[in-house]
Amino acid sequence: MSKPVTPVAPPLNDELDIVIPTIHGDPTKTIKVPQGFDYELYNRNDINRILGPKASCISFKDSACRCFGFLVSKKKYIFTIDDDCFVAKDPSGKEINALAQHIQNLLTPSTPFFFNTLYDPYTEGADFVRGYPFSMREGVPTAVSHGLWLNIPDYDAPTQLVKPRCNSVVVSNRYVDAVMTIPKGTLFPMCGMNLGFNRELIGPAMYFGLMGDGQPIGRYDDMWAGWCTKVITDHLGLGVKTGLPYIWHSKASDPFVNLKKEYKGIYWQEKIIPFFQSVVLPKESTTVQKCYIELSKLVKEKLGPIDPYFQKLADAMVTWIEAWDEINSPTQSAANSKEEGLSSKK
Amino acid sequence: MSKPVTPVAPPLNDELDIVIPTIHGDPTKTIKVPQGFDYELYNRNDINRILGPKASCISFKDSACRCFGFLVSKKKYIFTIDDDCFVAKDPSGKEINALAQHIQNLLTPSTPFFFNTLYDPYTEGADFVRGYPFSMREGVPTAVSHGLWLNIPDYDAPTQLVKPRCNSVVVSNRYVDAVMTIPKGTLFPMCGMNLGFNRELIGPAMYFGLMGDGQPIGRYDDMWAGWCTKVITDHLGLGVKTGLPYIWHSKASDPFVNLKKEYKGIYWQEKIIPFFQSVVLPKESTTVQKCYIELSKLVKEKLGPIDPYFQKLADAMVTWIEAWDEINSPTQSAANSKEEGLSSKK
Repeated sequence: MSKPVTPVAPPLNDELDIVIPTIHGDPTKTIKVPQGFDYELYNRNDINRILGPKASCISFKDSACRCFGFLVSKKKYIFTIDDDCFVAKDPSGKEINALAQHIQNLLTPSTPFFFNTLYDPYTEGADFVRGYPFSMREGVPTAVSHGLWLNIPDYDAPTQLVKPRCNSVVVSNRYVDAVMTIPKGTLFPMCGMNLGFNRELIGPAMYFGLMGDGQPIGRYDDMWAGWCTKVITDHLGLGVKTGLPYIWHSKASDPFVNLKKEYKGIYWQEKIIPFFQSVVLPKESTTVQKCYIELSKLVKEKLGPIDPYFQKLADAMVTWIEAWDEINSPTQSAANSKEEGLSSKK
Repeated sequence: MSKPVTPVAPPLNDELDIVIPTIHGDPTKTIKVPQGFDYELYNRNDINRILGPKASCISFKDSACRCFGFLVSKKKYIFTIDDDCFVAKDPSGKEINALAQHIQNLLTPSTPFFFNTLYDPYTEGADFVRGYPFSMREGVPTAVSHGLWLNIPDYDAPTQLVKPRCNSVVVSNRYVDAVMTIPKGTLFPMCGMNLGFNRELIGPAMYFGLMGDGQPIGRYDDMWAGWCTKVITDHLGLGVKTGLPYIWHSKASDPFVNLKKEYKGIYWQEKIIPFFQSVVLPKESTTVQKCYIELSKLVKEKLGPIDPYFQKLADAMVTWIEAWDEINSPTQSAANSKEEGLSSKK
């Protein structure tokens, strides 16, 4: 009747990829990576060459392009961070190992069916409180670990703007020592700044949409992925955790620029969120890919009437799954691993 | 578009009652209250005299009797604590004003429809994160503030027993600096040790059931109230918060005694929780009392077949509402306030 004990060890490098979108895949920019790192660097030319016509589903000049990294990764776990994020310190001044905490979150179960008032019961020193049903204590596999931010919080442009000193940098160093499962049926604003996930469990849902260059909307790439992911994890009986680890977010983006990128999203989300709250996926959708294709149909049907953008997005969702299946098919994987010069490989 | 600013001030004494169940209303025991406190002390004889035959709905010799205090209070806010709970200290060593935090929780809105990853957005220094729908930022009135415990956590008997040193006292001093809304549709294990609520919004749902002396079950009084309360707050569009404040819980109760009290509850809760998860109250149930009466019918119908206890409990739920309405009717309230010797009043 005790909680399951899961041995937690950070997986070896061969199980984890870190994906960092930087200057958004512009092939004219040179990226200098310090010595000693094992990395693959892809720019827009690589994306076009590898995906061919299906490259249309990957956003241009926007951090949404990071999902290309998820697509071509061959690892089980992904950790993605923004290029202005650094190592944070806990209240004792100790540097936080964000990767270890994400892995801890992902290797221990989630509890989406009932709320534990002492937070993640699988944390060292925590447990299920009195009244927590024993049949639910095994939990479910964790698909997503959503980390938080010290220094510059993730606020939208209007919130940035209305802070007492307009356009000043709002700094938050409140450290909440908790991880928790987001309950089944509850949506959340997923931020891509500090995000870990199990690619085998949820990878194909981590599509960051069509944002940025040539699109009517920006800064909703991670939100889109979050809404889709949460609906699909709920359907498939997987868990999403949020809380620790913190990273140090170094700079606030310009609220006026952000407002321009966000304003359609701010308007549209008032219809998009009720849509996602009402989504029911068919029982036959037993894989992430099947769920995602069903979701794309619902997006076209229910959100399409709002704006032609959503029809294009629904098509891109299908293209994304086709690209995922192509790149991740057993034969293609073997071919890729043999291919030389697929990207700038160290 | 900014979050609503709610001025927070602890209400005056005339808006708040503190309810402490102690030696469970045994009229043969003498309670000594220190000088300087304005209090009313009720024992079983008072309960019987005031409620007459309806006193049958109040548990004997069990902390569940505390709900009698909720019934006879004339105040807007209730704070109830166990008699082994004391003032806790925060990590800086400062004594925590639990009452002020409960009032802060109750006077600021809840956000049950969408998860805010930076926890309660109405906390000083916090806000809604990017992607939180603006239409949901007004929140809903908060009915319940569920506080936590330092020192001795609220574990059930099996969890106490299986801890590494069986039957040893498990101490937890993990301080999580957060308050959050429990999302709509999610049940939680509500503990009565450190609990605040708005009596005007949710009072009639705070019935602690039939427990202890003469009943087949104990230590599920607060759980019962929590399940009923959450279903009704969800239905009525009210909020439940959990987290801060902490109190210091001084002693762990005997796990062997607890096991005897709990074992039927542990067994039954596996059926009770799916029942509460599936409860749908009729639209016509627009008051707490109407919701509670509807719930009593469902309890009788759906849980009655498990054990005759639930039929008795369903009847007691009805009696409780009758007693609540009688004691809290405008005419009765006036009569009560004139009555001499209604209780041991200082």
